[in-house]
Amino acid sequence: MLIVHKYGGTSVGSLERIENVATRVAKAREEGNDIVVVVSAMSGETNKLIEYAQHFSDNPSKREMDMLLSSGERVTAALLAIALQEKGYPAVAMTGRQAGILTDDSHTYARIESIDPTAMKAEIADGKVVIVSGFQGINASGSVTTLGRGGSDLSAVAIAGALKADACEIYSDVDGIYTTDPRIEPKAKKMDFISYDEMLELASLGAKVLQNRSVELAKKLNVKIVAKSSFSDAEGTVIGEETEEMEAVLVSGIALDRNQARVTVRDVSDKPGIAAEIFTKLAEEQINVDMIIQNASADGKTNLGFTVPQSELTQAKAVIESFDHDIGGMDLDDSVCKVSVVGVGMKSHSGVAATAFCALANENINIEMISTSEIKVSMIVSEKYAELAVRTLHNAYNLDK
Amino acid sequence: MLIVHKYGGTSVGSLERIENVATRVAKAREEGNDIVVVVSAMSGETNKLIEYAQHFSDNPSKREMDMLLSSGERVTAALLAIALQEKGYPAVAMTGRQAGILTDDSHTYARIESIDPTAMKAEIADGKVVIVSGFQGINASGSVTTLGRGGSDLSAVAIAGALKADACEIYSDVDGIYTTDPRIEPKAKKMDFISYDEMLELASLGAKVLQNRSVELAKKLNVKIVAKSSFSDAEGTVIGEETEEMEAVLVSGIALDRNQARVTVRDVSDKPGIAAEIFTKLAEEQINVDMIIQNASADGKTNLGFTVPQSELTQAKAVIESFDHDIGGMDLDDSVCKVSVVGVGMKSHSGVAATAFCALANENINIEMISTSEIKVSMIVSEKYAELAVRTLHNAYNLDK
Repeated sequence: MLIVHKYGGTSVGSLERIENVATRVAKAREEGNDIVVVVSAMSGETNKLIEYAQHFSDNPSKREMDMLLSSGERVTAALLAIALQEKGYPAVAMTGRQAGILTDDSHTYARIESIDPTAMKAEIADGKVVIVSGFQGINASGSVTTLGRGGSDLSAVAIAGALKADACEIYSDVDGIYTTDPRIEPKAKKMDFISYDEMLELASLGAKVLQNRSVELAKKLNVKIVAKSSFSDAEGTVIGEETEEMEAVLVSGIALDRNQARVTVRDVSDKPGIAAEIFTKLAEEQINVDMIIQNASADGKTNLGFTVPQSELTQAKAVIESFDHDIGGMDLDDSVCKVSVVGVGMKSHSGVAATAFCALANENINIEMISTSEIKVSMIVSEKYAELAVRTLHNAYNLDK
Repeated sequence: MLIVHKYGGTSVGSLERIENVATRVAKAREEGNDIVVVVSAMSGETNKLIEYAQHFSDNPSKREMDMLLSSGERVTAALLAIALQEKGYPAVAMTGRQAGILTDDSHTYARIESIDPTAMKAEIADGKVVIVSGFQGINASGSVTTLGRGGSDLSAVAIAGALKADACEIYSDVDGIYTTDPRIEPKAKKMDFISYDEMLELASLGAKVLQNRSVELAKKLNVKIVAKSSFSDAEGTVIGEETEEMEAVLVSGIALDRNQARVTVRDVSDKPGIAAEIFTKLAEEQINVDMIIQNASADGKTNLGFTVPQSELTQAKAVIESFDHDIGGMDLDDSVCKVSVVGVGMKSHSGVAATAFCALANENINIEMISTSEIKVSMIVSEKYAELAVRTLHNAYNLDK
């Protein structure tokens, strides 16, 4: 089998941990697999380099930031290759360029455009472990680019796709995807399997193990991801295509997103299109509006409710204020959170949402807003109920069984 | 004018010092010059990375060492570009590859094979300061290579040659080339000019400002080097083609090399070729033999004397011992040093060596060995006389005037 391993900054955060990664890779090699390893910078290195740059400029050139930041992954890749060679396993370290990763021109947030796997394939055929510096590539004019936050995951998935690898194992300090955050609900269980779509919902709803961009790419390229811990031998969670087995499970997990604020615009005038104007202006200001509710009020005027990330609330307020001729007023509430129930089983089962509403009602938790998709139900509740709501829903769907 | 600046590790050893370099470059830009800057890694960085590698292996792969070590210069180049941009000077950071530096395959000690200056020229024409990561290039298969100790000087000289720059200013923590080491002779004077050949002799005889490889390359490419300090505005020393003015000066400088040991092989048998065999074996063991004297002794046997670096004395001893059937014995003396008088004026003036011999004799300093070339006279003396010999010769040729 050909397997891509990806080790994040914590997993390679010291020389001892790089040694530990070398031992893991050697073991996978001994089991008869071809291995390509994608590495991040040692934890702390990237932040140190960012601080260096900020010493000189509050707004450093993105092209130069990419050249600066891409150095950290090269160091890790070279050290891991040396560690493997010392154990007797032929290995070769590659930069993003050497691995054939071509991106667009968007410095600090580049998109991978193509991967030419010729050089990697030649080294694999030569019996070597290929170690690729994650998070980076070059653009058409040969400048170094980086892929943004979570970029090494993206590198790993894209490389797995280009090499048609059997799996892409993503190692971090947690051993898989849980039914909910174990710090909130100790009865949370690690899942064996989860579908791409469920993982996408969970990631965008607050789960932090995998970035959405990587999961989207894996889905597109049909790359099987395995989320594992580099500090244990636990099995991990497979993220892959939906199967009938997965659909038999009603609900996969409960997600919590605390970074929510609720805006209510009162007495919006009945001038046609005023709501559309408000949302257009919010979009122009790059404010991410999530849930929206519109209620008709008694006198023909409407109330408009929506949520934004807490960090964008001040900006959103300024936008709404610019409509002061057309609205009655506004209420802001940043003490709310969003709890979500996710599961591909919802597609074929009814009553999933009702179970959630009843369970929360039984605990006297008021649901302020609701939004649903094919595979999730999200609810805005007061932040003080956050943990209670998560535990209540986890229990209502028997996720600890 | 187009000027190449090169800043070594000490000159960019902290964020404050990088800021200082940016100020210098900005000033040179204000004077109307086009500037290409070649930078080393921040001092200490390269040693830190070497220690990291040695944690994993006593003999790490040279290819991976090059990928590891080349990261330090990239960091400096990116930071300097950001600092210049912040001051309002357009700048672009380049890796060795981006600057078009192609080398052979000798990892950790690569030779520059060619430089394609197209990309640098385009950026200069675009009004930018070009900042190149020193010490590195890529080989024909695209792997990163490094140029060995003093490699950033080599990069700077080669780039100056490829761009036909008007000068290559090499900045360090000393402000030029002195008639001798000022720590030994406080009356030593900074030279305004020195020829390539004199600089080569001085460098190989112990002066530490410039590496021989860079001076050789500058001579070959006819690049005018200026050795300057990054911490002062002093004029520096120009290293260039010999001029008639230079030849009028009898002696340029006095060099001292303390890393010398003397080996005397007694009573070498009169078997033909035994001396040749000894020197062949020493060469095979990579021992650098410097001066050689052979004396005929009374009974037809000869005594053979030569010098080696002190660090290679133990090895040399082992080689000589393997000849114990053919020699009478051996004496080792590691308390000697080499003082040298260097000057292109010697070519056209006689009596230079005699002045040295007389001056040392007047101080009762015994000369144990002598070797001469067209432009230098080197003498082995007891190490206890090292400083006295230097001061005596400095005075004998009126170098303080």
